[in-house]
Amino acid sequence: MPPSPFLAACRGEAVPWTPVWFMRQAGRHLPEYRQLRGEGSILDAARRPDLAAEITLQPVRRYGVDAAVLFSDIIVPVTGFGVDIAPGVGPVVEEPFRSAADLDRLRVEPPPYVAEAARLVAKESPVPLIGFAGGPFTLASYLVEGGPSRSYTTTKALMWGEPRLWGDLVGRLAAIAVASLRAQVEAGASAVQIFESWGGALSPPDYRSYVLPALRSILESLKALDVPRIVFGVCTGELLRLFSEAGADVVGVDWRVPLGVARSRLGPGSVLQGNLDPAACLAPWEVLAQQAEAVLREAGPAGHIFNLGHGVLPATDPAQLSRLVDLVHSQTSSPGTAGPGTAGPGTMARGTGAPTAGDDR
Amino acid sequence: MPPSPFLAACRGEAVPWTPVWFMRQAGRHLPEYRQLRGEGSILDAARRPDLAAEITLQPVRRYGVDAAVLFSDIIVPVTGFGVDIAPGVGPVVEEPFRSAADLDRLRVEPPPYVAEAARLVAKESPVPLIGFAGGPFTLASYLVEGGPSRSYTTTKALMWGEPRLWGDLVGRLAAIAVASLRAQVEAGASAVQIFESWGGALSPPDYRSYVLPALRSILESLKALDVPRIVFGVCTGELLRLFSEAGADVVGVDWRVPLGVARSRLGPGSVLQGNLDPAACLAPWEVLAQQAEAVLREAGPAGHIFNLGHGVLPATDPAQLSRLVDLVHSQTSSPGTAGPGTAGPGTMARGTGAPTAGDDR
Repeated sequence: MPPSPFLAACRGEAVPWTPVWFMRQAGRHLPEYRQLRGEGSILDAARRPDLAAEITLQPVRRYGVDAAVLFSDIIVPVTGFGVDIAPGVGPVVEEPFRSAADLDRLRVEPPPYVAEAARLVAKESPVPLIGFAGGPFTLASYLVEGGPSRSYTTTKALMWGEPRLWGDLVGRLAAIAVASLRAQVEAGASAVQIFESWGGALSPPDYRSYVLPALRSILESLKALDVPRIVFGVCTGELLRLFSEAGADVVGVDWRVPLGVARSRLGPGSVLQGNLDPAACLAPWEVLAQQAEAVLREAGPAGHIFNLGHGVLPATDPAQLSRLVDLVHSQTSSPGTAGPGTAGPGTMARGTGAPTAGDDR
Repeated sequence: MPPSPFLAACRGEAVPWTPVWFMRQAGRHLPEYRQLRGEGSILDAARRPDLAAEITLQPVRRYGVDAAVLFSDIIVPVTGFGVDIAPGVGPVVEEPFRSAADLDRLRVEPPPYVAEAARLVAKESPVPLIGFAGGPFTLASYLVEGGPSRSYTTTKALMWGEPRLWGDLVGRLAAIAVASLRAQVEAGASAVQIFESWGGALSPPDYRSYVLPALRSILESLKALDVPRIVFGVCTGELLRLFSEAGADVVGVDWRVPLGVARSRLGPGSVLQGNLDPAACLAPWEVLAQQAEAVLREAGPAGHIFNLGHGVLPATDPAQLSRLVDLVHSQTSSPGTAGPGTAGPGTMARGTGAPTAGDDR
């Protein structure tokens, strides 16, 4: 495999172009995915390594993105709670977590099919594979609420009302995440992302007191594997610093926080991932292009992995994402460097911080 | 009516104690509300001035809060779309907004029962009445999506895809808000709050381009009425400055942004409202008290109206809110000044910025 712009960007090194991938790039918005999966459950597909690997590779072939992300779900490594993924809803949990007795149901044994799928992808993929796991608050919220939630009241009641039990729960979930991520990396994943998607439901002091130790323990346990560690969540503008403090190498930013603001909170050397509003992919191309260019401008010339600020929406037209990948690559390729796809040299000088004369953005 | 700590705080003036009220203080969590309303629809109750006034006064009597807020809903002034409030869901719209032809359905004629309820409350209430209206993005999102939404994709598609129609829509919604708020103030409301609850779904540049002009027009139109203007939304950490720029006298802050951080974004003279996590009211009293004290500490000694960071959750025990009001009043009353309720003089010196010797927070 040639040197990867994605991995270089994660490490804050110089890149030939800004790398780009999309959260949920593998999945419902792709016709080839819908055809392959048919009517089965998402979890059924995630449990079949050959199918999961093929689904993972579909967007890599179609879009020429700079990273693959394993087709799976953050709830997959959590067994023993009657978990399913309800279409249009998300993870639902038949037997929610209620008391200390439920801790025993949390087994730290990643299902072998995840690593097997990672192995198949790593063998085939022309770009690095990102393994992933759920963040402690996010996973706990599904287990305690029994599914997605708007206000997380049951989760927070447990957190504040039984802090020791809560600590045991997020500690166990951290151990599950570590085991799953380690297995994915050993199978060939070159980077990992922690989806702490709903962590932004907590105030910064609460996240610090009740969740950060578990997040830190995940990130520290992974350090020896020497792969970039990305942490992402939505509505986390006030938590970005905490993610970084906990040991994230790359901080994912949703579209609510301009990347320039995020960088000012994290410091000049920080590496950011994001942050186009996923709904912008449903807008006319001219709007989408303007929005993408604004993201690149805010990000500055280095320390940026282009992505959406949350997952690809199911209604997204793949043609829009194709053009978007080409735009990011062509706009950011160094003069004289052919981009990764069909696009020619771009207009943004890399590493100088200054746009070239021809830059009209 | 004696001088109001709530109105003084809104104007940034010295206060005898930090005033407190709660968004959704009138409603489902109160047994006297459930008894009074019976099985009817929320909108039926909002349409009966005598009932709406009585419901508005219930929490004023029970809690001794420093302001009343009219029992109604932001969707009430929007007629012609088949609006209802679905229990546990929120506003739903039978015939959503789809095209320019739908603009004619947006009539700028506030229903007379809102002002009539305000008049009844203003006559009876020992504390100022807050009138309210929905913010332009928030109202537009209900009309376009047909109800609450997670990703606002249809709303944003209209906004980006048909910016002129969008401008007409939010302009008309602004006019409806102004007419409703003016009627409430003329009927006796002493302050107004714009609930731009879902504005945080937009990035700051998008909010600035597509919504801020409409918000500004509301706030400017109200200026001549000389009542404090509050603007509030959730996940709006990056929009606080825009709300202030648009003319808000008081900026509501959700629990995600520590008030000290909010003040640093808005400037030292700013007046903030908030920002306790509503879920904390479901926690054990000791936790709730700690969280409330942390809010008071972050807010500093002036320019603060205590509130939750979003509405009272229906599962909230009224006894918790009673203790919370007493805590805020007693902790912030000037030494030697009897608080408004049964609580004695508090421990926080007002206006000096320094806690007194006995302060153990």
